[in-house]
Amino acid sequence: MYITQALHRSARQTPDAPATIFGDRVRTWAQSADRVARLAAGLHGLGVAEGDRVAILALNSDRYHEFLMAVPWAGAVVTPMNIRWNPTEIAYALTDSGASVLFVDDAFAATLPALRAACPALTTVIHCGDGPTPDGALSHEDLVATHDPAPDAYRNGDDLAGIFYTGGTTGHPKGVMLSHANLLVSAMGTGATAGGFVVPDGRFLHAAPMFHLAAIAAWVARGIVGGTHVIVPMFTPPAVAEAIERHAVTEVLLVPTMLQMLVAHLEDEPADLGGVRHVVYGASPISEALLARAEKHFPSAGFTQAYEMTELAPVATVLTPDDHADPTLRRSAGRAVTSAEVRIVDADDVEVPRGTVGEVVVRGGSVMLGYWNRPEETAAALRGGWMHTGDAGRMDERGYVFIVDRLKDMIVTGGENVYSAEVENVLAAHPAVAACAVIGVPDDEWGERVHAVVVLAPGATATPDELRDHCAARIAGYKCPRSVDFTDALPVSPAGKVLKRDLRAPYWASADRGVH
Amino acid sequence: MYITQALHRSARQTPDAPATIFGDRVRTWAQSADRVARLAAGLHGLGVAEGDRVAILALNSDRYHEFLMAVPWAGAVVTPMNIRWNPTEIAYALTDSGASVLFVDDAFAATLPALRAACPALTTVIHCGDGPTPDGALSHEDLVATHDPAPDAYRNGDDLAGIFYTGGTTGHPKGVMLSHANLLVSAMGTGATAGGFVVPDGRFLHAAPMFHLAAIAAWVARGIVGGTHVIVPMFTPPAVAEAIERHAVTEVLLVPTMLQMLVAHLEDEPADLGGVRHVVYGASPISEALLARAEKHFPSAGFTQAYEMTELAPVATVLTPDDHADPTLRRSAGRAVTSAEVRIVDADDVEVPRGTVGEVVVRGGSVMLGYWNRPEETAAALRGGWMHTGDAGRMDERGYVFIVDRLKDMIVTGGENVYSAEVENVLAAHPAVAACAVIGVPDDEWGERVHAVVVLAPGATATPDELRDHCAARIAGYKCPRSVDFTDALPVSPAGKVLKRDLRAPYWASADRGVH
Repeated sequence: MYITQALHRSARQTPDAPATIFGDRVRTWAQSADRVARLAAGLHGLGVAEGDRVAILALNSDRYHEFLMAVPWAGAVVTPMNIRWNPTEIAYALTDSGASVLFVDDAFAATLPALRAACPALTTVIHCGDGPTPDGALSHEDLVATHDPAPDAYRNGDDLAGIFYTGGTTGHPKGVMLSHANLLVSAMGTGATAGGFVVPDGRFLHAAPMFHLAAIAAWVARGIVGGTHVIVPMFTPPAVAEAIERHAVTEVLLVPTMLQMLVAHLEDEPADLGGVRHVVYGASPISEALLARAEKHFPSAGFTQAYEMTELAPVATVLTPDDHADPTLRRSAGRAVTSAEVRIVDADDVEVPRGTVGEVVVRGGSVMLGYWNRPEETAAALRGGWMHTGDAGRMDERGYVFIVDRLKDMIVTGGENVYSAEVENVLAAHPAVAACAVIGVPDDEWGERVHAVVVLAPGATATPDELRDHCAARIAGYKCPRSVDFTDALPVSPAGKVLKRDLRAPYWASADRGVH
Repeated sequence: MYITQALHRSARQTPDAPATIFGDRVRTWAQSADRVARLAAGLHGLGVAEGDRVAILALNSDRYHEFLMAVPWAGAVVTPMNIRWNPTEIAYALTDSGASVLFVDDAFAATLPALRAACPALTTVIHCGDGPTPDGALSHEDLVATHDPAPDAYRNGDDLAGIFYTGGTTGHPKGVMLSHANLLVSAMGTGATAGGFVVPDGRFLHAAPMFHLAAIAAWVARGIVGGTHVIVPMFTPPAVAEAIERHAVTEVLLVPTMLQMLVAHLEDEPADLGGVRHVVYGASPISEALLARAEKHFPSAGFTQAYEMTELAPVATVLTPDDHADPTLRRSAGRAVTSAEVRIVDADDVEVPRGTVGEVVVRGGSVMLGYWNRPEETAAALRGGWMHTGDAGRMDERGYVFIVDRLKDMIVTGGENVYSAEVENVLAAHPAVAACAVIGVPDDEWGERVHAVVVLAPGATATPDELRDHCAARIAGYKCPRSVDFTDALPVSPAGKVLKRDLRAPYWASADRGVH
């Protein structure tokens, strides 16, 4: 099984139907297949060989879809960059992956000098925007125009399909290696689960950033069933409302922060979203109130919550539209999809009785191959054949999973995962900081926000703004503390470990933790 | 991904729901999981080790389901025997597979002496019937009762799941090796295709023999979605009608021969089959007239035609319920499912233009691992990465496949494949036969029937009955010629090859070939 199969199948069955709609630009499946095969030939011409990593740093577009197909078609490995990271972080991931070819669009062309300086291995840049091609870069359109179609390399099954970077518990991003089978098993297994979230020949709106595995999973799911990818460059409420109305969109994936912004917009400027059949959400908690408001604006839609993780390619459980009708289940992450086996285990990896809190572990064909070049972290995460999610949860008698906390020290803010350790490392490097702890606290807009508790060095001074600026120069904006408290000492355990639960307790006492 | 996952998932999510209904015997998913784990432990106690083949020769039952789960749970490989074969053929397949353990039920206990005599490697027989345990056999129920549950061996992915014997073009059956991934990809891919043929928490009636890959595929498809297996020992029209009514069946798989017998029965003794949502058919042609009659008796059902082949685990294309509404498509085999890429190629394996007849070839994650111990036949069948079906067909502009002939010399009669070469080899061994050719001719009851054209040796005589008896002593009844013509000479090509097309032409001139 291979992710290019979707392109073969739709090009044979619906050659004249739209594959991608991006603004006014519509490309049919026949055109898309032809362009992908030419772009793959272009990559071969640049020396891209079997198993090479090819990176992309771009907003959403129809060319992002072509990238995702052409790279495996050429026998190579997609390596999407997080567009919210700063150049230092992106350079780290580029270097770690060993990519020598990078696709970049207009929005990120300005970062090229910094990336080139930081990544000597980066020899080729392909410009996939609509503006002028930057100096020293090749053009995506030229590659398509000047090459004859290449045959599909047919990488498949357990072959590496992509490396997807996520925040690391130890401070550096890790590359999650997913195979063709991983991605397809998650998509097919979720599709075969009651309440599968794509309709035949429907139109999926890609508004969430396409570097994100949740968006790539939606792209795979729509692709294998057929239909159309409707793409907007990035999430904005007016762009999403307009695309849904104009292009008869049937499904949309939104994180709750986006859903909240969209609903607020729609309350001011109503739009007819009656064509939408499925709204898929996940990645951070959603409140009852937001769900109720959203249901009003999507009168024909079922809501599906997916509990996802990059390492699971990505779906482990879903709360189906039918499940949403039961108020006692609204705080649940749902039940294992067809393609995943889910258990709750204790510290010795023994399954606990129903209702008991333990770590959520997952097994099945969608579990990652491992972390790129990190055999020890891979072995630890996959010990005993199960992916250890780092989430604490319980399971009821019917198999519904309720996430109660995170064992890993991670914050989910606006749909992005932030590892506290990474922020703490940066903060601790500030000369005025003697000790610090970074936690997630509830936030109406972001689900959680990054909050720092800081102990200043004797005699030193620093303001919250100074500390934020210090962080912003080194890590992505969404990772920087949005609020800072100063204190004389951090609460510690007898063994000297910071008791983050004590720091979090006052913030969370009255809030639903919900599901990330 | 592993076929036991269905058991894990349903035991966690719906422990008290019925897993199997067999007559008055109902077992829940919790009971089924417990019994399977105990039976697997029993197999370990008998020395069954990783990768060993374990065979079964039995009518359908709830214990057949337990066999299909317990064997992989124990780390071994299921090896179902065709219940229509005679002991010589079964002994061939048992010996070829190297199985040392055989499950057998009451219906086939009488063949044990012959099988034991022919298969010295067969050391252990497990009786899975409800009658008395035959001499020298162990009892399925005793194994369950006397063992503690074993943990799942978790064979998965590309690991061999089963060996499924099919007729061979060269006269001997071949063992088709299918992996866990093969079976699950076909089931999930078909389920994710528009018109997928199982409903959430539905009840699938297993009336077609469970050794058949079509039935096993239905069992996998129902299993991964959850729900209930309703099982009758074998197809009879009253048993099927009664089971559907009594157990609220939602899906049923029938070959057209069965559907015809069922419809004839229902016209005499009406039953309420309104609960059935999907009727899946395949394996031989269906006439417009039969379809129209069947639609009357299944008022709530959509009809799905599956174009299947053991080597494809088994689904390549489906004609969906929506497709059936278009009269121009009723003779089509439908379009590639999500999990398969289908092409029509010429003798050089180059894709032909749409509308041109060529060989149907299939690629994807459901294509078999190969033929057991037959590397040369495997390489020939899978050349270039595509499974060569041996069927001639054409594809229209929308990807619909129309099967027009078989390149392999194969007859499909009552849902069973018969290779002419095998029948010809047996016929030719009769002393009165100088030359012979075996072809399929249209038959109202069987779709096709096996027909022999015989040239007698000079001075010799033989009647059709004598020749049939000769065959029936050596090969399964369904393979024996149902009609025989005598002639002075067979039509041959300049190269001396029998021109079967010329022999078939007069029979097929006015008939639809349809789809097998």
